[in-house]
Amino acid sequence: MAEMLHVPTHLTTANADFSQALAFVDGQVVPLGEARIPVRDLGLMYADMTYDVVHSWKGGFFRLEDHLDRFLASCAGLRLDPGMTREQLRRLLAGLLRRSLLPDTLVYFACTRGTAVPGTRDPAKHNAHRFFATVTPLILRGQPEEMRRGLHAMIVRGVPRIAADSVNPHWKNTHWGDFHRGTFAAKDAGYDVAVLLGPDGAVAEAPGFNVVAVLDGGLVSPEANVLPGISCRTMFEIACDLGIPARYGRLMPEDLARAEEVFLTATSCGLFPVTRLDGAKVGRGAHAGVPGPITTRLLNTYYDRKNAGWHITPAASIPPPDMPWEAPR
Amino acid sequence: MAEMLHVPTHLTTANADFSQALAFVDGQVVPLGEARIPVRDLGLMYADMTYDVVHSWKGGFFRLEDHLDRFLASCAGLRLDPGMTREQLRRLLAGLLRRSLLPDTLVYFACTRGTAVPGTRDPAKHNAHRFFATVTPLILRGQPEEMRRGLHAMIVRGVPRIAADSVNPHWKNTHWGDFHRGTFAAKDAGYDVAVLLGPDGAVAEAPGFNVVAVLDGGLVSPEANVLPGISCRTMFEIACDLGIPARYGRLMPEDLARAEEVFLTATSCGLFPVTRLDGAKVGRGAHAGVPGPITTRLLNTYYDRKNAGWHITPAASIPPPDMPWEAPR
Repeated sequence: MAEMLHVPTHLTTANADFSQALAFVDGQVVPLGEARIPVRDLGLMYADMTYDVVHSWKGGFFRLEDHLDRFLASCAGLRLDPGMTREQLRRLLAGLLRRSLLPDTLVYFACTRGTAVPGTRDPAKHNAHRFFATVTPLILRGQPEEMRRGLHAMIVRGVPRIAADSVNPHWKNTHWGDFHRGTFAAKDAGYDVAVLLGPDGAVAEAPGFNVVAVLDGGLVSPEANVLPGISCRTMFEIACDLGIPARYGRLMPEDLARAEEVFLTATSCGLFPVTRLDGAKVGRGAHAGVPGPITTRLLNTYYDRKNAGWHITPAASIPPPDMPWEAPR
Repeated sequence: MAEMLHVPTHLTTANADFSQALAFVDGQVVPLGEARIPVRDLGLMYADMTYDVVHSWKGGFFRLEDHLDRFLASCAGLRLDPGMTREQLRRLLAGLLRRSLLPDTLVYFACTRGTAVPGTRDPAKHNAHRFFATVTPLILRGQPEEMRRGLHAMIVRGVPRIAADSVNPHWKNTHWGDFHRGTFAAKDAGYDVAVLLGPDGAVAEAPGFNVVAVLDGGLVSPEANVLPGISCRTMFEIACDLGIPARYGRLMPEDLARAEEVFLTATSCGLFPVTRLDGAKVGRGAHAGVPGPITTRLLNTYYDRKNAGWHITPAASIPPPDMPWEAPR
């Protein structure tokens, strides 16, 4: 008997309480709706910023240290200074999460090069860099019925992912122009999501997702022109424990077309099955066009483990921030 | 006797009166320092926006219709809706400029995909797009002494300009990650400015500048992987009237190295001479390492013509906006 997908049902747009959503910006905690930055911020004017998104599950961060690692590496690579130590950052995010009283959230945090200095475009001549963060209710991308249907993906031809030598994808960035073009092309053609190829013709990423194929019973995810995805790594760890091989490698469009299963990974869903690719059902036999057994097992194990506290750091275990906060207005 | 560069001396950072700077955002006119947008604006989160910058000279816009053409083409290409007709946009910018009481300004105007809708990344599912504009004092990049020294440029190897098939450079965008990497590389090596090559190895752009070389007495500017620059077009028009040939074409790094003169074009300076390239003086003989005679003549003619009203639309000639404005706070 085939295992069924078990996905939480309560984390929907309808259930999300945005009145609890908070932001930390310019040293103050404010309701999300009041969180604003200057129109002359260089993050807006020239996409000169980085960010990361960690989620909380039942009041605890999932893989917080991995997200902090990546954020601090992105800041270093882009020469951005959030103005806080790692410990201060950890405490700030935990304090913000606790203050929201929301158990299941997305915690977005970003650092920009600050407000533009008139008369120069030299990124070394700057005002203080700007750190900000938001806590919003976790809305699961992929509700149970959507998960069982799966995504219908289109491999976009003619819009390659921005090359890694132009913009380093390891430094998480907001350069999504190629993703937007690809998404419009996919939506125009009646698909749910775009899969972009790299300049080398190999599969790269979907917008905000890593791509994973099941080939000969093992997982393969692209090694080049991609953000090192933390959810992808999570699925690889689970696969490893379940005895399923998993590796990063070169994945060509024809590999994806012959894959036994395909899924996308992201913080906001763990994974999302792809059940059709370029109009054809993914997989064969009883599994054609439906989430496959490995995909299903990985996602169910992901929830079982998170519920058991795997990779979870309770916000309550992190000391309060040592910075004086203004009360929310 | 060689012609001297004549550049206005009063448009400096020290002279700029930012207390007069204004912004139009979310339907209100506010002092620039109060102009903010939500941290969940998609222009910030995913660089999902376009913008343009026109300058005013003695109270009149320079080439306003060309900037409106480009902005509206960018909006159409990126499927962004500023929520205004061209005439409304023209009147709004003119009203904002008049209200600032500043004669010589940069007028920045932008359209983003608006505030993120929770639970989706579909760019077709959106809130109203967000238009905003700012008017700030014109600070001439390139004061007289800087113009006479010229810029020392470095051709950056290994960081190509984002490919046109990934992000269309004709739609003016904020994807500057490659420019920032190139700028840091150039500054680290002691240069003023980076020149980026396209993925094809030909010269593309400098950050916010088109590149122009004087070769065999005529102007050549790259035709691919570049924004169609309005200041570049201006210099081409002046050249044409002066009997100097000008064309768009393929410009290789070795062409730049052997050029008689090199300059960069942008709204904030008209043009800026490049007097050293990769450490070597640009040009030969008496003109080696100093702004050349064609560069000098173009820039002087540019100012003579602007002062005579060429391509100028007085703000006072444009009817007032038909939208009700709140008084500045």
